Amino acid sequence: MLQSLRHYLPILDWGRSYSRGALSNDLVAAVIVTIMLIPQSLAYALLAGLPAEAGIYASIVPILLYTVFGTSRALAVGPVAVVSLLTAAAISEVAEQGTMGYATAALTLAFLSGAMLFAMGVLRLGFLANFLSHPVIAGFITASGILIAASQLRHIFGIAAGGDTLVELVESLVTTLANTNLYTLVIGAAATAFLFWVRKGLKPLLRRAGLSPMAADFAAKAGPVAAVVVTTVATWGLGLAERGVAIVGEVPQSLPPFTLPDFSPALIGQLAVPALLISIIGFVESISVAQTLAAKKGQRIDPDQELIGLGAANLGAAFTGGYPVTGGFSRSVVNYDAGAETPAAGAFTAVGLAIAAAFLTPLVHFLPKATLAATIIVAVLGLVDFKILKKTWAYSRSDFWAVAATILLTLAFGVETGVSAGVLISIVLHLLKTSKPHVAEVGLVPGTHHFRNVNRHQVTTDPALLSLRVDESLYFVNARFLEDCVQDRIAEDSPVKNVVLMCSAVNEIDFSALESLEALNEVLTSRGIGLHLSEVKGPVMDRLKTSHFLDEMNGEVFLSQYDAWRKLAPCAVVQAEARAAE
Amino acid sequence: MLQSLRHYLPILDWGRSYSRGALSNDLVAAVIVTIMLIPQSLAYALLAGLPAEAGIYASIVPILLYTVFGTSRALAVGPVAVVSLLTAAAISEVAEQGTMGYATAALTLAFLSGAMLFAMGVLRLGFLANFLSHPVIAGFITASGILIAASQLRHIFGIAAGGDTLVELVESLVTTLANTNLYTLVIGAAATAFLFWVRKGLKPLLRRAGLSPMAADFAAKAGPVAAVVVTTVATWGLGLAERGVAIVGEVPQSLPPFTLPDFSPALIGQLAVPALLISIIGFVESISVAQTLAAKKGQRIDPDQELIGLGAANLGAAFTGGYPVTGGFSRSVVNYDAGAETPAAGAFTAVGLAIAAAFLTPLVHFLPKATLAATIIVAVLGLVDFKILKKTWAYSRSDFWAVAATILLTLAFGVETGVSAGVLISIVLHLLKTSKPHVAEVGLVPGTHHFRNVNRHQVTTDPALLSLRVDESLYFVNARFLEDCVQDRIAEDSPVKNVVLMCSAVNEIDFSALESLEALNEVLTSRGIGLHLSEVKGPVMDRLKTSHFLDEMNGEVFLSQYDAWRKLAPCAVVQAEARAAE
Repeated sequence: MLQSLRHYLPILDWGRSYSRGALSNDLVAAVIVTIMLIPQSLAYALLAGLPAEAGIYASIVPILLYTVFGTSRALAVGPVAVVSLLTAAAISEVAEQGTMGYATAALTLAFLSGAMLFAMGVLRLGFLANFLSHPVIAGFITASGILIAASQLRHIFGIAAGGDTLVELVESLVTTLANTNLYTLVIGAAATAFLFWVRKGLKPLLRRAGLSPMAADFAAKAGPVAAVVVTTVATWGLGLAERGVAIVGEVPQSLPPFTLPDFSPALIGQLAVPALLISIIGFVESISVAQTLAAKKGQRIDPDQELIGLGAANLGAAFTGGYPVTGGFSRSVVNYDAGAETPAAGAFTAVGLAIAAAFLTPLVHFLPKATLAATIIVAVLGLVDFKILKKTWAYSRSDFWAVAATILLTLAFGVETGVSAGVLISIVLHLLKTSKPHVAEVGLVPGTHHFRNVNRHQVTTDPALLSLRVDESLYFVNARFLEDCVQDRIAEDSPVKNVVLMCSAVNEIDFSALESLEALNEVLTSRGIGLHLSEVKGPVMDRLKTSHFLDEMNGEVFLSQYDAWRKLAPCAVVQAEARAAE
Repeated sequence: MLQSLRHYLPILDWGRSYSRGALSNDLVAAVIVTIMLIPQSLAYALLAGLPAEAGIYASIVPILLYTVFGTSRALAVGPVAVVSLLTAAAISEVAEQGTMGYATAALTLAFLSGAMLFAMGVLRLGFLANFLSHPVIAGFITASGILIAASQLRHIFGIAAGGDTLVELVESLVTTLANTNLYTLVIGAAATAFLFWVRKGLKPLLRRAGLSPMAADFAAKAGPVAAVVVTTVATWGLGLAERGVAIVGEVPQSLPPFTLPDFSPALIGQLAVPALLISIIGFVESISVAQTLAAKKGQRIDPDQELIGLGAANLGAAFTGGYPVTGGFSRSVVNYDAGAETPAAGAFTAVGLAIAAAFLTPLVHFLPKATLAATIIVAVLGLVDFKILKKTWAYSRSDFWAVAATILLTLAFGVETGVSAGVLISIVLHLLKTSKPHVAEVGLVPGTHHFRNVNRHQVTTDPALLSLRVDESLYFVNARFLEDCVQDRIAEDSPVKNVVLMCSAVNEIDFSALESLEALNEVLTSRGIGLHLSEVKGPVMDRLKTSHFLDEMNGEVFLSQYDAWRKLAPCAVVQAEARAAE
């Protein structure tokens, strides 16, 4: 009982041995992450099309719940760029941005996503995330980064452009560019340039100036806060809001409110598929970073418990004015690098955000949206990585096509279409690859019991014995291929008297393949040719024994290919021995 | 040039060597098939919701075109039950049955299907049919048979029931049963009973009466014609049409007319997906029977040329008043059994149907629809076969679930949903199976160089060397699984110093799996454990060499598992030798 409680509440595990050392490390990490998270939470809410406070609320209760249920010791849960973009894409289908319905739909989306993640965790469906291949994820993240950056340009220029695809975004930017607000552009461009410089140039500079690596790092992390402070003060002092610079404006000064999602079946029906997509993508992003960071310390992540943790976090977001959250890549790395030892670091971050929500929101009234857009652009362009194209091109063309298609389709048709198509393309390419398996004719390597491809090695063969090694499991997609392949090699006047299928790489024979083998056996029998199998694996053989095939097959099952040859081609074996002796 | 022309026109091949013997055999087969086809073509048109003549027209030009382009020597092309049902399901979505629009939509469907088949043939996409697994096809045919039989009951009762799913059909039958026309019911029930008896009881009876097997067989084949003649005469003589017995009525007396499909983009958009489904299902049904029959004589079928042949047949149907056609199972078997030697038998059948169309249609004016329904019911119930459930249950649960789901979904949601779901389920089950591959820890069999599963065999092991044999290709769906699997086996205080992955059954390592191996290498390196590979196949090794992984890997690639042990666990090898010597 206690054991199973502890399984579902990992906090009982690490909480018991919580030490003073861990506390001080967690506190330091929490301070750094909080400083990073305050502008990010406002910015990602903006990206999702929600009021700024939704980002802060999404960073309090959800983080606390993840602390209780999650297994990763370094994961920083909260609003992240890709999920914010997916949220905007999903909700703008069902409600007008800026309306109450829009914010409520965000709650419903968080609720659905939370319920799905939680259910998947209880049902132990964590492996579903594997259907997203690494190249598809990489391509999706890169394309999303470009889309997000493009979508933020309107805040930099102070214009009302929009769109879900790259073409829409560019078109809309071009047509509205004439309305550019110069004050906004100056702030936006300056903030963007400053943040890029902080990212690339500041740290080396501070190090050369004699700062310790830790202090230099901290200063670089605080860059966005500096940009926020400077541009807010400038906007307030120079009265730029009256000159058309869009500002964050009134943000309620309160702890997260209790909110209720809209449970109407119509809305749930419309949001179910986007919620599933958000759940899976959020989970994949989160589990990737969690596993990477855990592996560095030899710790383990339980994917199914992670689903429960993220599910709880999203359910929390739904009832406290937030929107879908997940474990973010960059903040988690910062959290880890800053020394976070336990999920308690997350709890302290939540406290920091709660303080901000209760006391600091009046300070961001004059914060220009352009500054927030600049922090997003700089953050997401760090995710854009076209090297994956080069790497996959060199290694595997089918992976290359999957990643290229994902990038192009995401840019051309938006995030939802892009990632769905990427998954489908990966699966279809995999099926196509296995649909025409490598089948090698093998011969005996003189002086050994080994059999190798006749085209790659000097081997002994026997014209009356056709030995084929099938390099793939036999299942419905390639069942007919093997039948055709054997028949192709036995031309009408072929001298072949026996066919041996060497099954060392056959990990499965499904029912369709069994029927194909039966058909092949019938054809060969009618032509007076024997059909034999060799090196059949234990599990495959166990299954074949439950069918009638082994009784109907006109030949034998040999333990090894060598046994088959000793019986079916004894002269060739003797010849090979003679050749080896020469 | 001539060679390639001959490739696309197989008639040039078999036509040159056409002999008088083949001619007489083909003629006999054509007579038998024609007698069978006349009532069937009327009945299947009825099933498709089309006027009777559409069935006859679909059996003339399409067959001639297949004769020119097809490669099967026994395939009988024309209207078939399942494709007729699919046609009805597709067209009733876009037009009202009985209207001109309905018949024109059937032409458009035939055109689209023909164009798709033709294009797939030219693009050599015949392998796409492999995505339908044998159990899914078997389940689909069984469920379709039940649906078709249920849909024909309304003609037996003379009521106006309808529906696409079993529930709809049964509900509609029950609510309209009160309107049963007794005359119709008597004719329908009598015809059904008679045809069942002809199928099961007549042949043995005639044999016992001293008839030759061939004559008895012919008499049984003529059963439907007898039922048609008797019920037509009775309906005409007793004036039953005035008493509410539905009859075929006026059928134009003419050769196939020239017709034009409706090429409006809206209609093409609506029919594209059904046309694809019909193309694939029709192709699968056709190629299955063609290959089965060809194999019996050691002949070969070219799937891509078959696509072209069926494509030409459907294009022909579209321009001559027909509807989608394919190679039918039962008529092809009859054609083969009757001795058809070349596609010319089909051409002679087409001539028979043309004569019927030009001269005999007035004779079917009083033919009751109930008789046609009876011929359909008896024909399709022969396709219903639940034994596939028992066979797959015994052999492979995942195949069982695929077939069970296909049957249930087809009955519950109609043919289109059923077969699409069946394909999806097969693919997902296959991916799930490969997502958690069999990974065996292996040890050395004393006295040999062989390595076997430590749980199944008496083998020597070394606690410092973990040898894992992976029984599956490594690709994105199972990439993370292997990583987890290795980490699970190396507990925190494990004595393992080296891990060897034995890759004899690994037919592929895709980019995702490569990244997982890199991650695994990093984790093991950080813990001071070596990672090695053994027995990597040629094509897999070629690809690994294009990546940086082999440079980064902290261990070696061994040619054989035995080589790995001689280097990494020499003591265990000596021990095994000692044990073998005992």
